[in-house]
Amino acid sequence: MKCLVILVKVSTIGSHSSLQILHGAKMEGFQTSVITDTKREKFYQQFNFIDKVLAFKDIDEAVDLINSEEDSVLIPHGSLVEYLGQERVNKIKIKIYGNRNIFGWEGNQHKKMYLLKTSNIKIPQTFEKPEDVDRVVIVKLPGAKGGRGYFLAKNKQEVRQGIDDLIKKKEINSEEDVIIQEYIVGVPMYFQFFYSTLLQRTEIFGIDIRYETNIDGLRRLPQGYIDVEPTFIVVGNIPAVARESLLPKAQEFAESFVNNVKEKVPPGMIGPFCLESIVTDKGEIVVFEFSGRIVAGTNLYTNGSPYSWLYWNEPMSMGRRISRELKNAIINNKIDLVTT
Amino acid sequence: MKCLVILVKVSTIGSHSSLQILHGAKMEGFQTSVITDTKREKFYQQFNFIDKVLAFKDIDEAVDLINSEEDSVLIPHGSLVEYLGQERVNKIKIKIYGNRNIFGWEGNQHKKMYLLKTSNIKIPQTFEKPEDVDRVVIVKLPGAKGGRGYFLAKNKQEVRQGIDDLIKKKEINSEEDVIIQEYIVGVPMYFQFFYSTLLQRTEIFGIDIRYETNIDGLRRLPQGYIDVEPTFIVVGNIPAVARESLLPKAQEFAESFVNNVKEKVPPGMIGPFCLESIVTDKGEIVVFEFSGRIVAGTNLYTNGSPYSWLYWNEPMSMGRRISRELKNAIINNKIDLVTT
Amino acid sequence: MKCLVILVKVSTIGSHSSLQILHGAKMEGFQTSVITDTKREKFYQQFNFIDKVLAFKDIDEAVDLINSEEDSVLIPHGSLVEYLGQERVNKIKIKIYGNRNIFGWEGNQHKKMYLLKTSNIKIPQTFEKPEDVDRVVIVKLPGAKGGRGYFLAKNKQEVRQGIDDLIKKKEINSEEDVIIQEYIVGVPMYFQFFYSTLLQRTEIFGIDIRYETNIDGLRRLPQGYIDVEPTFIVVGNIPAVARESLLPKAQEFAESFVNNVKEKVPPGMIGPFCLESIVTDKGEIVVFEFSGRIVAGTNLYTNGSPYSWLYWNEPMSMGRRISRELKNAIINNKIDLVTT
Repeated sequence: MKCLVILVKVSTIGSHSSLQILHGAKMEGFQTSVITDTKREKFYQQFNFIDKVLAFKDIDEAVDLINSEEDSVLIPHGSLVEYLGQERVNKIKIKIYGNRNIFGWEGNQHKKMYLLKTSNIKIPQTFEKPEDVDRVVIVKLPGAKGGRGYFLAKNKQEVRQGIDDLIKKKEINSEEDVIIQEYIVGVPMYFQFFYSTLLQRTEIFGIDIRYETNIDGLRRLPQGYIDVEPTFIVVGNIPAVARESLLPKAQEFAESFVNNVKEKVPPGMIGPFCLESIVTDKGEIVVFEFSGRIVAGTNLYTNGSPYSWLYWNEPMSMGRRISRELKNAIINNKIDLVTT
Repeated sequence: MKCLVILVKVSTIGSHSSLQILHGAKMEGFQTSVITDTKREKFYQQFNFIDKVLAFKDIDEAVDLINSEEDSVLIPHGSLVEYLGQERVNKIKIKIYGNRNIFGWEGNQHKKMYLLKTSNIKIPQTFEKPEDVDRVVIVKLPGAKGGRGYFLAKNKQEVRQGIDDLIKKKEINSEEDVIIQEYIVGVPMYFQFFYSTLLQRTEIFGIDIRYETNIDGLRRLPQGYIDVEPTFIVVGNIPAVARESLLPKAQEFAESFVNNVKEKVPPGMIGPFCLESIVTDKGEIVVFEFSGRIVAGTNLYTNGSPYSWLYWNEPMSMGRRISRELKNAIINNKIDLVTT
Repeated sequence: MKCLVILVKVSTIGSHSSLQILHGAKMEGFQTSVITDTKREKFYQQFNFIDKVLAFKDIDEAVDLINSEEDSVLIPHGSLVEYLGQERVNKIKIKIYGNRNIFGWEGNQHKKMYLLKTSNIKIPQTFEKPEDVDRVVIVKLPGAKGGRGYFLAKNKQEVRQGIDDLIKKKEINSEEDVIIQEYIVGVPMYFQFFYSTLLQRTEIFGIDIRYETNIDGLRRLPQGYIDVEPTFIVVGNIPAVARESLLPKAQEFAESFVNNVKEKVPPGMIGPFCLESIVTDKGEIVVFEFSGRIVAGTNLYTNGSPYSWLYWNEPMSMGRRISRELKNAIINNKIDLVTT
């Protein structure tokens, strides 16, 4: 059996969650490689669980480097599409763990919300046009930009102004690129899941809270102390657990989502995903976004999360969970079920 | 010895901290069962450390199901009384881990504070009547409601108004049900302890910060951005450690509390409890509440907390600690010392 | 080899991070002792990894107690100088792990910033005199006071007023004692590192966020609800991880710092240090302070941090990391490389 495993290598782009992905891959017995910018070459070389660092000077070389790893499975993460761009990603010929068809859905805020809505998941109201806005909203840009460009607006005028500014700054091409979402009052909670194709079950993996600059710093200052616009750039994550009574609901949403993706984005959800949520004081979970792949919040749990210990009783990071699934798929001759 | 252990099963109500309780019980070699609402049946069935899921459609069946587990020890948690109600809890005939006499004290905010005060623990000033209020206060409802209904008030008029509203909404029967507490300026810190009856020692178990909706979300918005009243519903927990120099004081409070409960609520504190505190900028710990059983904040530490590792050098959740104590009590023929 | 190890004991002052230091030392096979105030004697006696508790009634006895541990290596931490004072510390005759020459640099805010600046690390602008201030600033006292006395000021008048108050209260002797720093808008992130003299590498150890009273409590209140000045006393720490793309930059800063300290403060950085930073919404890391020894934020990671697991694949607290290095130094007859 072991020979089957060593036939395959796990690779990823050096960013986002690559450390835990490759650390987990090594724990499962895989060879590992990271494809990264030459500026980060030295950084990744220090870790003994990374067997090979493939560095590129120019981003156009990245795809060639990826494709040169013929015996590898590439693990996608939030920086893959954002960094390489959809066009380059389309040129990747080696196996990708998970469903590569979901990238296009993730990159479009409207399709994203459609997928959540048709999963019978409670979502915030969306306003088609700035003129429809009748409450406080948050306006979001497409893709996994880590919150860059997002802004709050109290009324239709502010929405219009903000969108026009984004177009001027060439952050977006047109109004259609953004999504205008009702601002839900409550607390953010990001529910991380793993859908196991082999075990056909949805595991609650962990929970995190995003740590955003400058908003999480501004609120430590007396109001009006510094005249700065709040920004929402994610620069880190903080661990959390939820009331146990929220978990069945969160998991129900997750399972419903898995079923819906199976239908609408074949071959369906494979492996890690996240339901980015607000929990209101009515105890409701409102999902305002999803990620169809590993999220950086799982970086908190290199040695397992409060929830993964319940399933595994051994250190199980999301990175390792991916490689465990991959290994089991290879051993059982089912690698096509978990790669695309 | 092992045969003694397998004679006993650990059971709990499916909510609050039941996952870590049963996970820990299984690690200590117990059979396990969970009694839960049929809606959550599927949720609990997914975990392999739960041997039996007993589901009820109607809450009145819950006590019968509990009592049907004759060979079990029931582990109480914050949802037990809150969920079943004191009357139903009184009908529980199987052994309960810990001191069931403390439930009545926990359900009454005035008795709660009395127990803290007579333990020589620093507590916030309490105002008997709304008319006595001369500073910012927080008004709290009885029981472990997770902060529901709590409100802040700047003066006696606001207190009066808030209480009248609660009576109108039938959240409380009369003014006597609430407690009016001085609002202590500082940061919340919840000190979790375990009192071992067998080892006669008080272990610092961990620290958490509650994550409350909508207050922890509101503060991320510019002031006055959304016209919503702050609410304090606990929906999760965030881990923390304290300055080491605070720990001796916290432990002194905890030990003093244990001694006092032994006298006033025989047979005394058994197992987990929590001192819910504010730490001021004078370095003082002011305890505004206690929990006489496992708190949900310990859910953070399924694999041990920064403090439990110091005592145990093996993964020790609060759930597992309970079962470790229970196991040792059974082995030493002292089960009556830890159950009531 | 083992006999070499048991020849040496690890000691520290009972405060700050002494629990993890001694716990880690025991895991590496050392004898351990703690020197502490008699008031804390009982507290430290409860832990079985502490072999000896040496208690003093009067702080002047502390140095004698330390020096009585002739076969010990003393592990310094943030409370050492702050608690004993530089003069007493100078009288310590036993070996100190790390570079004792750095204490003087740490105690002086101006020398501190000079060391960062000459390491080509981005730092906030410093204003020489209150009269130079042209933006919001934070004024800081010397030493590791855990934020005591720090204040925010919007303009030169407020700076002047605040400094005069500190002089009146005898918190400082003169204006020269404080540092007036530009207030950087962003989120705090404290990057913990370990420089291994033996392996000649800089390990990213972990990240924490300080939990400060009353500021972290005040922000939960509606603005102007309570008329209290914000204070910044560190009473605990909260764990976090950073975006992976921030790590190469943080490590570059750390390595540059190590090189610079080698030159300016021989024999250079040895073991744990911390770069206290703000991450801005431009993705910049601005370092506003450093600690040249173990920080209390590492207390979060008794069982290893999200990053230490990547290097070690075994539970590795900062305390244990120190003793691991010490043990390896002893075994290789290089103890003089890691002690001064």
